[in-house]
Amino acid sequence: MRKTVGWQAGRSGSRLRRTSLERRELRADDVAVRVDYCGVCHTDLHAVRAHAGDVPLVPGHEFTGVVTDIGPEVTRFAPGDRVAVGNIVDSCGVCAMCQAGQENFCHEFPTLTYAGTDRYDGTTTLGAYSREYIVRDEFTYPLPTGLDPAAAAPLLCAGITVWEPLQALGVGPSSRVAVAGLGGLGHLAVKLAVALGADTTVVSRSDGKAGDARRLGGHDLIVSTDRRRMAAARDRFDVVIDTIAVPHDIAPYLGLVALNGTLSHLGHLGTITVRTTDLLIGRKKLSSAGSGGRPATAAMLEFCAQHNVVADVELLPSARVNDALDRLERNDVRYRFVLNMSDLS
Amino acid sequence: MRKTVGWQAGRSGSRLRRTSLERRELRADDVAVRVDYCGVCHTDLHAVRAHAGDVPLVPGHEFTGVVTDIGPEVTRFAPGDRVAVGNIVDSCGVCAMCQAGQENFCHEFPTLTYAGTDRYDGTTTLGAYSREYIVRDEFTYPLPTGLDPAAAAPLLCAGITVWEPLQALGVGPSSRVAVAGLGGLGHLAVKLAVALGADTTVVSRSDGKAGDARRLGGHDLIVSTDRRRMAAARDRFDVVIDTIAVPHDIAPYLGLVALNGTLSHLGHLGTITVRTTDLLIGRKKLSSAGSGGRPATAAMLEFCAQHNVVADVELLPSARVNDALDRLERNDVRYRFVLNMSDLS
Repeated sequence: MRKTVGWQAGRSGSRLRRTSLERRELRADDVAVRVDYCGVCHTDLHAVRAHAGDVPLVPGHEFTGVVTDIGPEVTRFAPGDRVAVGNIVDSCGVCAMCQAGQENFCHEFPTLTYAGTDRYDGTTTLGAYSREYIVRDEFTYPLPTGLDPAAAAPLLCAGITVWEPLQALGVGPSSRVAVAGLGGLGHLAVKLAVALGADTTVVSRSDGKAGDARRLGGHDLIVSTDRRRMAAARDRFDVVIDTIAVPHDIAPYLGLVALNGTLSHLGHLGTITVRTTDLLIGRKKLSSAGSGGRPATAAMLEFCAQHNVVADVELLPSARVNDALDRLERNDVRYRFVLNMSDLS
Repeated sequence: MRKTVGWQAGRSGSRLRRTSLERRELRADDVAVRVDYCGVCHTDLHAVRAHAGDVPLVPGHEFTGVVTDIGPEVTRFAPGDRVAVGNIVDSCGVCAMCQAGQENFCHEFPTLTYAGTDRYDGTTTLGAYSREYIVRDEFTYPLPTGLDPAAAAPLLCAGITVWEPLQALGVGPSSRVAVAGLGGLGHLAVKLAVALGADTTVVSRSDGKAGDARRLGGHDLIVSTDRRRMAAARDRFDVVIDTIAVPHDIAPYLGLVALNGTLSHLGHLGTITVRTTDLLIGRKKLSSAGSGGRPATAAMLEFCAQHNVVADVELLPSARVNDALDRLERNDVRYRFVLNMSDLS
């Protein structure tokens, strides 16, 4: 086994501690990545807070780094290459979803970057809050030239999660897009929608982020509690990207959706309750999305390089991971924490 | 006021009684229609059973008949014309939805054919379980030559309700469509999807309707309780038209929806509960639809005439309306009751 160092949840579930970790020896199609930067995702926070201590938990599933070693069958990468990895590191490869390039929807469930189960040795995957990660070459992406590796890390989870629905819903220059919630997902949804040419509006609980909304390229900010503004925006948006990370009533946001338009509910996994008439009137659609397939992830990275889209990040030494989680819990970040792993060397 | 005869709910709410009714004198843009045939919709059943007796209730909102008189500004119709009318008889005409030809989604709410409120005199509209109906010319449709007027009546509510989503979702020769529930809505969804060229499958609680499914043009029937068949049909259909008329878990039907496909939930108005992951995995969409706008209604009638699509009806004298409602409540009809109003003359 290979040795590395990372941040692992204790049995208490609330704090991560620096610890030595084992990584597998390289398989034929494996790439060894020195993790340089890893984003801090809401999923990490949920996982740490809910951790019962039954299996080892090392979070981290949006990271960039440099290839240090390759298995004998790897041809796409060489040591020294800049790479990026997201929240999926394997899938069955043969089901209809994998064949369609949507490994994120693999019928056998994709192998998650952490807290997943390796398809070969059955071990629990340990994430990228660590200095090294071993990953199949097919789930490793070249990091395009020009993308800052720290600011690009969140593209691999937050970015692709909003990119896929924007693409699937055909967002382009004639689109009217609203993004509800301006956080890690939301600010990337705004940047990507703007880069795709859409007329993009932010919907937020207060006007405190109005300046940011404009700086990100948004046309406008609507305060969600302002009934007059919300009513005036009724049926206005072809696509509403709902990135709100807590349970909430989607009815006000469905009200913003135009005839035949779609609300993509991304920010909170759980049960949604919807009145049929809120869908019926205007023949509106409710959808969701999460993560992405390999072709879309590669295309998204190229698009971001061409359009200079990266996350707005606050870069912290990895030793401050617990501060980052605490502050994320209070929404005290604009808009994504990224951990610098060089302090683990 | 004009006098006619119809079937009105008593205060008890459970039985309809023959009674004389008043209709308004013709306005400038009104058409007087002798109602010949009126379909019996599930909505009628709900309305009668829920009737509290506070306002007069005469059901009936999918009917065909013959023009007997016209207002002075009516140019599209003349006495003797065969016509059809659905569940909307007026709308504001100026909102974005009306301007888009979706009067069914009028921001001021369309005037319903019965139990609605007339936009001019404020009276409660009385439906077409009667011998005469007075209706604005714009909400009156020519009944195309070749369509049997009895079997065509259900097209005006059941037909248009399934036609609009089939059209909006782009159903055509390359589409794979499943229709869940084979009743009034469902059997027309099958006929229309087949006529549009789609590969169409019925999903039903039992195989008792397998013969009907094939006769209607369906490719196959899947029994919804057959887990093996349902699992084998996972992710198979671009469009699932869910016409089941009672509250039900939509998860098994969402499972049938293909990547980027849509489940259109039509049969039961109420609250839907959906797990986000059931939408997320496969990026599926949940939608609804109901009734239709004027352009789509006219187009649907022309399409039905060209493709010889009408409802499978059981024609009863209007005096048997209470039997029809009782039997509809037990799902004892294949697939729509139509009342013959000639016994009211």
